[in-house]
Amino acid sequence: MSNDAHSQPAKKSQDLLYDPDVAALSHAERARTLADQVHVATLCTVSTEEAAYPYGSFVTFAMDGGRPTFFISELAEHTRNLHKDTRASLMIAESGGPDPLANSRVTLLGHVKQITDEDERERAKAAYLKTHPSAAHYIDYSDFSFWQLEVDSLRYIGGYGRMSWVQGEEWASSEADVVAEFAEGIIQHMNEDHQNAMVEYCQAFSKATDTSAATMTGVDRYGFEMSAETAAGPRPIRLAFASPISTSEEARKEMVRLVREARQTLTQHQS
Amino acid sequence: MSNDAHSQPAKKSQDLLYDPDVAALSHAERARTLADQVHVATLCTVSTEEAAYPYGSFVTFAMDGGRPTFFISELAEHTRNLHKDTRASLMIAESGGPDPLANSRVTLLGHVKQITDEDERERAKAAYLKTHPSAAHYIDYSDFSFWQLEVDSLRYIGGYGRMSWVQGEEWASSEADVVAEFAEGIIQHMNEDHQNAMVEYCQAFSKATDTSAATMTGVDRYGFEMSAETAAGPRPIRLAFASPISTSEEARKEMVRLVREARQTLTQHQS
Repeated sequence: MSNDAHSQPAKKSQDLLYDPDVAALSHAERARTLADQVHVATLCTVSTEEAAYPYGSFVTFAMDGGRPTFFISELAEHTRNLHKDTRASLMIAESGGPDPLANSRVTLLGHVKQITDEDERERAKAAYLKTHPSAAHYIDYSDFSFWQLEVDSLRYIGGYGRMSWVQGEEWASSEADVVAEFAEGIIQHMNEDHQNAMVEYCQAFSKATDTSAATMTGVDRYGFEMSAETAAGPRPIRLAFASPISTSEEARKEMVRLVREARQTLTQHQS
Repeated sequence: MSNDAHSQPAKKSQDLLYDPDVAALSHAERARTLADQVHVATLCTVSTEEAAYPYGSFVTFAMDGGRPTFFISELAEHTRNLHKDTRASLMIAESGGPDPLANSRVTLLGHVKQITDEDERERAKAAYLKTHPSAAHYIDYSDFSFWQLEVDSLRYIGGYGRMSWVQGEEWASSEADVVAEFAEGIIQHMNEDHQNAMVEYCQAFSKATDTSAATMTGVDRYGFEMSAETAAGPRPIRLAFASPISTSEEARKEMVRLVREARQTLTQHQS
């Protein structure tokens, strides 16, 4: 994973108040997570017309392992394009939030091929129907078939200043973050019932020792992020779990362990 | 404008209960309206790498007349791609609703070129800042510049079974529907305060003479659409205004005139 520069408007760089090497999701893991959570995207193919424009079309998709899976009609432009040229990319974007350019998105590049093997077709069908159950209405239409994108490489952009190219091998061997499914619940619970604990985390485990309030803004299998209110304004703080978690209960245990550790640390500082 | 076939899942065709030639927005007008309302899209360019994949990237844009306008960084992949090959498409999609494939979307195909003329740049800048005021923070960054898509043709898909190719000339000479900006207000007002009037419209001006209730579902400069409750279930009814409207007040006057006409028609039927 390599980062490269990109203009970050309207924000001056500030010293990080937490360990820059704190465990975090890789860009491949973030991209896999995004592809698992968002079920619509733009498929880019090569137009069959003379000018061969790169052609973007709206598609629904589902993930079958690391392969985005499409159930598309022979009548659709992108299907005609793919029959002639399998080169394609799939652009998947997070939506919502006040600044769309701060959202994460990924472009998966590779070849989209029609599934002909019967076993592969059954697996693709199961994956597709799990994500798009209403497709059951036309799952047996003769002009529709399953196609999959084999990812050669990807461009991940996680908002301002967080982006890189990732190779297909890393994409294939990475997993979506299992915590994404229940992250909202953890965040809500922490912000409603455990604000004091988060202030103690920031005071004990980061340079934001003057934190007066803290809000959880994100959590994943490796750790969690907070916005800490400091004398210098709100600052991001990321802390890691002792080891990656995969359930809500493991998250709860880690949060409790960290409070105990934070109080011990803060008591030692005071004495 | 030509329509072509596309599978329409899970719905059997029914006789239309209103005049099929009722005045309605053309596909070019629908596409222009969509491009005016949605400010983010996917830009498809030709990747500069050896494989020359069609490359989709997330962009913000603004309309300058019929030209989608971008303010993009030299560091971004799409900008590098466009410097080498100006062929591109822009896929703009409506969002929301329970079935994403029922939403409208358009793919605009053409060439994206950097603006070098100073007057054109000022016009593009004004259009861009009007739509994306927060870009003022980096409007003078030296690595950002304005680019515009000159539309050669477009593919419009208005949901199931409503789609066509439109040529650039028709796109250029069409206008976005001015009513789109206040359509929601009209719909809300009619559904809250004028349900009886809409039942009378359906009974008098369509074949749904047994309409027992009606809900407005859309309005544009040429007319409006309702969902009429009939003995055979809910059915769509579209009616045209006497002439295209362009203000909320003109819509109100037409609705009042149509009630008067509907009552006259219904009274004649009864006598």
